[in-house]
Amino acid sequence: MFNSKQLTVLLGGLGAIVVLAAGAQFAVGGQPDKTRDTRSALHGGKPKNVIFFLGDGMGDQEVTAARYYQYGAAGHLNLDRLPFTGFQTTWSVKPDGKPDYDPDSASTGTMWATGTKTLDERISQGPSSAIDVPGKNLPTVLERAQKQGKKVGNVTTAELTDATPAVLDSHISLRGCQGPTDADTLCKTETKAAGGLGSIAEQTVDHRVDVALGGGRNRFAQTITGGKDAGKTVEQSAARQGITEVNDAAGLAAAKRSDRPLLGLFAPVNMTTEWNGPVATRGDGTPAQRCKTDNRPANEPSLPAMTKKAIDLLQGDRDGFFLQVEGASIDKQDHAANACAQIGETIAFDNAIRVAQEYARSHPDTLIVVTADHAHTSQIVGEDTSGTGNPTGYSNNLTTADDQTLRITYGTAGGATPPAVPPSQQHTGSVVPAFASGPGAAAVLGTTDHTDLFEVLGGGHGRR
Amino acid sequence: MFNSKQLTVLLGGLGAIVVLAAGAQFAVGGQPDKTRDTRSALHGGKPKNVIFFLGDGMGDQEVTAARYYQYGAAGHLNLDRLPFTGFQTTWSVKPDGKPDYDPDSASTGTMWATGTKTLDERISQGPSSAIDVPGKNLPTVLERAQKQGKKVGNVTTAELTDATPAVLDSHISLRGCQGPTDADTLCKTETKAAGGLGSIAEQTVDHRVDVALGGGRNRFAQTITGGKDAGKTVEQSAARQGITEVNDAAGLAAAKRSDRPLLGLFAPVNMTTEWNGPVATRGDGTPAQRCKTDNRPANEPSLPAMTKKAIDLLQGDRDGFFLQVEGASIDKQDHAANACAQIGETIAFDNAIRVAQEYARSHPDTLIVVTADHAHTSQIVGEDTSGTGNPTGYSNNLTTADDQTLRITYGTAGGATPPAVPPSQQHTGSVVPAFASGPGAAAVLGTTDHTDLFEVLGGGHGRR
Repeated sequence: MFNSKQLTVLLGGLGAIVVLAAGAQFAVGGQPDKTRDTRSALHGGKPKNVIFFLGDGMGDQEVTAARYYQYGAAGHLNLDRLPFTGFQTTWSVKPDGKPDYDPDSASTGTMWATGTKTLDERISQGPSSAIDVPGKNLPTVLERAQKQGKKVGNVTTAELTDATPAVLDSHISLRGCQGPTDADTLCKTETKAAGGLGSIAEQTVDHRVDVALGGGRNRFAQTITGGKDAGKTVEQSAARQGITEVNDAAGLAAAKRSDRPLLGLFAPVNMTTEWNGPVATRGDGTPAQRCKTDNRPANEPSLPAMTKKAIDLLQGDRDGFFLQVEGASIDKQDHAANACAQIGETIAFDNAIRVAQEYARSHPDTLIVVTADHAHTSQIVGEDTSGTGNPTGYSNNLTTADDQTLRITYGTAGGATPPAVPPSQQHTGSVVPAFASGPGAAAVLGTTDHTDLFEVLGGGHGRR
Repeated sequence: MFNSKQLTVLLGGLGAIVVLAAGAQFAVGGQPDKTRDTRSALHGGKPKNVIFFLGDGMGDQEVTAARYYQYGAAGHLNLDRLPFTGFQTTWSVKPDGKPDYDPDSASTGTMWATGTKTLDERISQGPSSAIDVPGKNLPTVLERAQKQGKKVGNVTTAELTDATPAVLDSHISLRGCQGPTDADTLCKTETKAAGGLGSIAEQTVDHRVDVALGGGRNRFAQTITGGKDAGKTVEQSAARQGITEVNDAAGLAAAKRSDRPLLGLFAPVNMTTEWNGPVATRGDGTPAQRCKTDNRPANEPSLPAMTKKAIDLLQGDRDGFFLQVEGASIDKQDHAANACAQIGETIAFDNAIRVAQEYARSHPDTLIVVTADHAHTSQIVGEDTSGTGNPTGYSNNLTTADDQTLRITYGTAGGATPPAVPPSQQHTGSVVPAFASGPGAAAVLGTTDHTDLFEVLGGGHGRR
């Protein structure tokens, strides 16, 4: 008979062997006893490759709405096939060090990028006594991966200079300092002219991220006002530094593996949403309908296509790679109270997860982690209400794969006398879901914090 | 070298040994690698004892609000110590067999109690062509436990005849048929006078549940109008059947283990909430404040006290026991838009979980599962909004353990012109969180459905 310590040692010794089984598919849905499958999916050790998926604003209401609309009540998303699941707390801190229960995407991103709690609006800088006083620049998980010789990638459907991609490769006090002109106005002491690291666009280029794909070309068209590339646009600075730029789906498809970093800028601002539909309205909400699913122009690559290309370009290196993929407009369309656009982005994000799952099947030394940076507004409610039984806010009615009406409501902004057109809806403060597979995936079990992800993703010890 | 099949067999053979380590405390919060702890917490086999905790309406917003209010942003609930976590879908079905994305507590309870999807309002009966046509009576997980010789218990803070407790020991077409008089009006074909099983109160007594504790004494004071006990109240019928009744905390404390079932009815209707505070108001919401935490009269036992006594009375039998514990008024106070009362019930529920965790530490053959039957309205939002930045609904501002303001908003009912006093808020359709420890606990990983719980809790194969 073994005692429990001996058993732990015995089982621990088998860890390397268990990795061999990691490509196996984890069964979806309920089973009488998942113990065996779980044991087979459970293995420790350091992953060679890390693919981190961030669904911006993708709380459990958003995940459920996408599942029900696209696959029906009994259907399954690709992320449902990830064997380990849990919850993440998302709170940020205020200048006085007290918690802010309803954070933004800059502070939350800084948590997993650096392991540190910081102020809202801050990009991989620590907290400080006031928002306009820059904090300390903090090493990021992407920078650490680069130091370890790993290839690194950063993919988003937002501007590449938006908060979630920015936290990996930039350090600046305000998320609004996206291009040189923005920083000249908002972050005067951090520009290159002032001897700083410059705007997020400049830092993204200077970091030589191997594959950086997204929108926001306008930020890179702004002119640098200090340092070596003063007078050049950020795009010109990138070219001077040997970075290849592509601007459409065909250009991305043609890109080949190379020592030159690839910068893909596929839209002047945020990339176009995959789907569209009406903005939510008050009372009973919009008439029940299916979503328009062909909203994205063909010259903009899809999130699954960007993810596939990023993995193709990053993989094969002896040291492995780190890749972050953001589904950014789940959040943006939740703010906009547009259920169709929100769900279309969630489905595209989930399809990008499938691309990574396919890679991990043949490369079991790959850790996949999926989570959201904060919860959001949308809620599934009864579709058969009327009068005061209706939500107080704005609602969309969608006809799902089950041919049933799914009513989604948005009511976190509008005030006591809500205008007909919804103002930008609020984030919410709930924990968010987390899903993972591969070496170390059990770290997402239970309720953990965004700062805990820093070490899980390879960034070393976190600090709160 | 082992192949993965050999490995599974090898590891499977160790399952019985791993059980020995089940009493160990699972670490709370983030760790660099939880693989070893998870492996040590992971074991299969059939549990001897099952304790099922149902937080009515306890979605992740409700869990998060309770954690932040009571323990602060970095604090932990007792349920955070359960090692396996996942999500449960909650949808019910309509008479035409199509899904209802926003279910009630009767249909959701019937799912885990019987493994079957059914209509809203239905108590452990299958679906039918119309709500007023009774469905087929379905065997429940409690009945199966009784057949296996296990002791059985049913604890709630609601009326004992409310939907969640009722699904274990009753079969009736409408949840409203709680006492004989109610059934005479609403469920005419199912009364004892009509040759049926009678109201929920009658069936609860007739089932000889070993320990049944909660509110709802008024239902048991109604007079039976048919069958052997015609003319008797349900309480008198219970006495005639050798069931001991207690009506206050002192009576419960004095109860000793016995072959006679124990019926505890501690309030005429629902039991009093532990905490209280103001109902939410529109605009900026109520002034920031701490909750009144001494709302429950001393003669009503707390949920942790009822849980402790139920375990004391049920345990020690060779065949083990099945116990359900419901935190019922999380839901009821979410409907009422009263954040203090809602959070107080969540904390009491979480303290009842600690009682079970303490029992499981010395009895590792105990499965603990915690989940909710459906998500609900409350959302944590920014406390620094004004004008149209405010939620459209009703808000409470609470001063948390961090000495910060936590704003909780309710906006799923009120309509386009919300009245000053909030009408009953709606359930929402998101997945709900699930937490588990003990033999078979890994079954809650990933996204499963309420019907899957039937088998997990010992009820045999489920059917959708």
